[in-house]
Amino acid sequence: MARDTRQRILDMALALFNADGEPNVTTNRIADEMDISPGNLHYHFRTKQDLIESLFSAFETRMLELLGPVDDQQPDIEDIWLFLHLVFETIVEYRFLYRDLTELCSRQRSIQQRFRGILKLSLETAQSLLDGLRRAGQLEASDTELNGVVRNIVLISTFWLAFDAVLERDGQANPNRAAWQVMSLVAPYLVDDTREQMQELLKAYQN
Amino acid sequence: MARDTRQRILDMALALFNADGEPNVTTNRIADEMDISPGNLHYHFRTKQDLIESLFSAFETRMLELLGPVDDQQPDIEDIWLFLHLVFETIVEYRFLYRDLTELCSRQRSIQQRFRGILKLSLETAQSLLDGLRRAGQLEASDTELNGVVRNIVLISTFWLAFDAVLERDGQANPNRAAWQVMSLVAPYLVDDTREQMQELLKAYQN
Repeated sequence: MARDTRQRILDMALALFNADGEPNVTTNRIADEMDISPGNLHYHFRTKQDLIESLFSAFETRMLELLGPVDDQQPDIEDIWLFLHLVFETIVEYRFLYRDLTELCSRQRSIQQRFRGILKLSLETAQSLLDGLRRAGQLEASDTELNGVVRNIVLISTFWLAFDAVLERDGQANPNRAAWQVMSLVAPYLVDDTREQMQELLKAYQN
Repeated sequence: MARDTRQRILDMALALFNADGEPNVTTNRIADEMDISPGNLHYHFRTKQDLIESLFSAFETRMLELLGPVDDQQPDIEDIWLFLHLVFETIVEYRFLYRDLTELCSRQRSIQQRFRGILKLSLETAQSLLDGLRRAGQLEASDTELNGVVRNIVLISTFWLAFDAVLERDGQANPNRAAWQVMSLVAPYLVDDTREQMQELLKAYQN
């Protein structure tokens, strides 16, 4: 029962942080929306920082499951496309983290360090996927070119959500468009057959 | 004299916001660092929001001078490179705006609207520069490809600073690396001669 309450607090906090932005949501508001006393919430999470850290840990677990060097198996454009969708859906689920990332990281150094770990692993994963495509003869690029693409992939994966929030009036998070933007970084380096396969994918998902 | 004080307040606010992040700097702290009374500061800027709006206006003026559709004159890779540096130096000068962009925009709708205006103008400027290169036969890409590149250019221009702040331990803003990242989006679409010219530029500025 106590465990249930703990999870219910986390679910409510995540929903409110995502809707209104973490800086704009107090723990009292969370307790209020759940019809529990502030004391009850405080029993489970002594501070708002504790709440944020618990949510971050759940997010981190999901990301570490998704990311990581790819096995030897030949990578495939459709697999990469699917992989991007899984990553971007996780980002949407925990979007409050990405909304105020700089402020969150400057306030909680432990989160900055762990988030930096996720970014470094993302760089390695992207590098490993592109190296695989290159080894399989599906991609042609110099090491310097690949370096630039890898850094741009991770930057766009990290900030597409914040960019959409500022640029689009409706502010709907659209993982499809994000995957499209990331794939279009890779597209010009693909060899003919693979490039056509990619164009088909991009066309199918453009809307 | 009053005008001097007003400008000195703006300069101090900009320096402190950039150093510690706007959410972490109070108007009392600004007055304190200047050795003036909070009442004196309040005489010039009734609220912190007023201060932020004034700084934003100065930033906006600079950006609107830089951005805008390009004239008919044939664009040149070196001109574009220089242009990116001017834009990124302006961004570094007002980096507090880019650090907590989402939160700032959600808190001050008027700033969100004006910032969105700057982003839309940036998209048009990038589109116009790339169209120019394409018309001059220096670049080969479909309309769909150019669309993707244009959106990625503006996204990376907007968030490279926040990305560096989270990823790099020293957290130094590096406009050079940012220009390099943006140019590497365009590089694969350039035709041979122009691509070589670009590779020379990228090599010269890589460190």
